[in-house]
Amino acid sequence: MDQDWLEQIRIRIDQALDNSLGRHLGDSKLLDAARYSVLRGGKRLRPALVYAAADAAGASPHAADTAAIAVELLHAYSLIHDDLPAMDDDALRRGQPTTHIAFDEATAILAGDALQALAFSILGEADIRTDRMRVKQLNLLGEAVGFRGMALGQAIDLESEGKALSLDALKAMHAKKTGALITASVLMGAACGNPSDDDWDALTQAGRAIGLAFQIQDDILDETAPTETLGKTQGRDKMLGKSTFPSLLGLKASEKEAYALVEIAQGALARVAGDTTMLEQLARLSVERTN
Amino acid sequence: MDQDWLEQIRIRIDQALDNSLGRHLGDSKLLDAARYSVLRGGKRLRPALVYAAADAAGASPHAADTAAIAVELLHAYSLIHDDLPAMDDDALRRGQPTTHIAFDEATAILAGDALQALAFSILGEADIRTDRMRVKQLNLLGEAVGFRGMALGQAIDLESEGKALSLDALKAMHAKKTGALITASVLMGAACGNPSDDDWDALTQAGRAIGLAFQIQDDILDETAPTETLGKTQGRDKMLGKSTFPSLLGLKASEKEAYALVEIAQGALARVAGDTTMLEQLARLSVERTN
Repeated sequence: MDQDWLEQIRIRIDQALDNSLGRHLGDSKLLDAARYSVLRGGKRLRPALVYAAADAAGASPHAADTAAIAVELLHAYSLIHDDLPAMDDDALRRGQPTTHIAFDEATAILAGDALQALAFSILGEADIRTDRMRVKQLNLLGEAVGFRGMALGQAIDLESEGKALSLDALKAMHAKKTGALITASVLMGAACGNPSDDDWDALTQAGRAIGLAFQIQDDILDETAPTETLGKTQGRDKMLGKSTFPSLLGLKASEKEAYALVEIAQGALARVAGDTTMLEQLARLSVERTN
Repeated sequence: MDQDWLEQIRIRIDQALDNSLGRHLGDSKLLDAARYSVLRGGKRLRPALVYAAADAAGASPHAADTAAIAVELLHAYSLIHDDLPAMDDDALRRGQPTTHIAFDEATAILAGDALQALAFSILGEADIRTDRMRVKQLNLLGEAVGFRGMALGQAIDLESEGKALSLDALKAMHAKKTGALITASVLMGAACGNPSDDDWDALTQAGRAIGLAFQIQDDILDETAPTETLGKTQGRDKMLGKSTFPSLLGLKASEKEAYALVEIAQGALARVAGDTTMLEQLARLSVERTN
């Protein structure tokens, strides 16, 4: 991994997130809760995918800033709501109390709501240069997080607690719950440039493979990594009676599946005309990470 | 009131909402919960304001459909989340069980989330003809519902429970909680056309006055209308220890204040170049309604 590039991108995105949640939005407990949730760190995988895909599509980092912020704000809102008592009821996230513990439940719900509003409304920013690009990004995000994407995935996940899912059903659920926004991150970046239809298809395939590989690694870490490294409660999925890749396949086969998906992603990326070095490295990082 | 116009507009918006939440979004409990929340009726004041303002700005109903759907979906999401146990904890809405009672709490949170995503992402629709209009609508909605609008208003409202607010503080809270989206509804409609700066200012002033008048009437009805007419639990605000206009001013002075605001709205509308008949009638309706 080109650590320099990733480190620079993280600094860029942390700065952009800090600005987007700045005091122009007021001085409220609501904003404090959102800043607490968003700015305490995080892997920033999704915005990194945006910048990497923008690079592959020949677009500058500047042209990709809005898309990068949007996907991370949506990710942050989803974590806040997923952790709520009515959902996964989790007390720890990124090594610190979850938002509804650090603040209160109503504030956590509303902070998530306001983050989602901000994520969409910044698609009105000037770095999106044409109406065609803006429409594309609105459609990508809407599809990724709404009734057919992340929210649906979370609803299916909750309904599935205590039931043994088939491998296909587990994959279909995760394709919505985590895969949709990860794939959208790649395509949001690509949409900042002007990729050919073939490049678009290859990037879509790569995004889906990276999304699923990332989730399998999440399940593996939930079982194997200590809470301190993980930053969230270890073994939480098992406790909630959730089906996971290791529970269905075992640890060894899950690891194999994750690496096979990275190879699929790399195969797809090899067909893209532009420079996909960063995307390939992020694909590997999605399964080589320890938290 | 031109009942025919309003009735036609309600049929138009109900049909448009039904389409926007159609089976192209899948077949899920999540969508069922959203349809339950959105399609059980409602006054449809906000979309009516969109169409009326579009008319005043010389735009066709067709050009205003997307904005009309967007504001009603956002309103519906806010009702679902406001009724949650962690917020106002209400069991009755539009004469029927609230969404978290009819379904469950997690589904209600996620249905609200997905409705907000849909509201913003339909701003990618084709009836918004120029990038300038799309940007304007994204900015208006973002400002109305996020960290400086509706979500902040609800957060302040919850923090204020059991405290006696000053009249100014009560007005400031409601300007965000209900006023922002009502004002935005007027401006979203206006942005479908090409109003002059003077018209824009007058419509903004009218929208703010209508928003506050509407809220005062809400407070009056909470105290005076029976639960059956109201469709929600009568006296709920008092029970939650919330400051209301009648609790600060008394009923009589609250009514007077509401009518004074309608006159302010009508005065502002008289300065608009286009035909504001429908907007004037909606301004009156906001205080003459019984539910």
